[in-house]
Amino acid sequence: MTDAREALARLVIDVPDFPEPGIVFKDMTPLLADHDAFAAVITALAEAGRDASGAVRVDKVLGMEARGFILAAPVALALGTGFVPVRKAGKLPRATHAVSYALEYGEATLELHCDAVAPGDRVLLVDDVLATGGTVNATRLLVEQCGGTAVGVAVLMELGSLPGRATIGDLPVTSLMTV
Amino acid sequence: MTDAREALARLVIDVPDFPEPGIVFKDMTPLLADHDAFAAVITALAEAGRDASGAVRVDKVLGMEARGFILAAPVALALGTGFVPVRKAGKLPRATHAVSYALEYGEATLELHCDAVAPGDRVLLVDDVLATGGTVNATRLLVEQCGGTAVGVAVLMELGSLPGRATIGDLPVTSLMTV
Repeated sequence: MTDAREALARLVIDVPDFPEPGIVFKDMTPLLADHDAFAAVITALAEAGRDASGAVRVDKVLGMEARGFILAAPVALALGTGFVPVRKAGKLPRATHAVSYALEYGEATLELHCDAVAPGDRVLLVDDVLATGGTVNATRLLVEQCGGTAVGVAVLMELGSLPGRATIGDLPVTSLMTV
Repeated sequence: MTDAREALARLVIDVPDFPEPGIVFKDMTPLLADHDAFAAVITALAEAGRDASGAVRVDKVLGMEARGFILAAPVALALGTGFVPVRKAGKLPRATHAVSYALEYGEATLELHCDAVAPGDRVLLVDDVLATGGTVNATRLLVEQCGGTAVGVAVLMELGSLPGRATIGDLPVTSLMTV
């Protein structure tokens, strides 16, 4: 059986100066192209949605556009929950909550359909990278605006040079690799 | 067991005048939020990657940004293949092929990493909607630029009022709903 962390170390590629000079982009596409590695990573991320006994502890899995979709949708299917997309401004067609925030580079607005998370829902957030924590914090706010609670965030990797964990405070993080 | 077509008819919502006046947007987010419906739809789409005996007939599954990611990644996992993202311009960090084309509304450029499809690879394309066929044709060209072959396209729904099937010629289409 493929080990998720070994697969990440082997199949995530450093691309210097993308999308801007001085940024080293972590390209996960070689990992996604390897079925066994992709499947192992989904199984590992889904653990963040289970309690110590292995029971599913979340009602929904949220994925952040666009790379988060690739991981969050399979995690939701693995956990037996629904999947909810968190999208960039102007993409969701019905009534939304919106939060603007600073990115590692630039700024963004995220939106969530108002009816996508029900009051009392416990949700897991899934994305590829935890960098500054801005995306996670914005999504957590969106969930709270719906009356739900984010109970954890699962990412492939966190950037150790950035204050992601400090920014998001007490939200438990499952990260398969620190880079 | 949830029937994929029944679930689609029940859980895809019409949103008039989005993203532009006169366009009726088909919102699949209620379907994705329903685990059983989402799982049934993935199983049905994955059939497009099997031959008559049930054997997997494709080497990779390609998903088109962004909604295509939500469907294509689980289809790849279901078929036991790798997943490859087809992205909008400027998102993929390494060397890409690029094709520009006309959308139902507007214009777009799609890119594919040059090494994402190997010469001889047989690939399945997965997206949410078949509209004009422009996205599918552009992706098919990208696959051919890599030396691969698109052997089919699987979509949740096709717009019967638009010439999608005619545009894409002899590429077999698996569509779960015509709207």
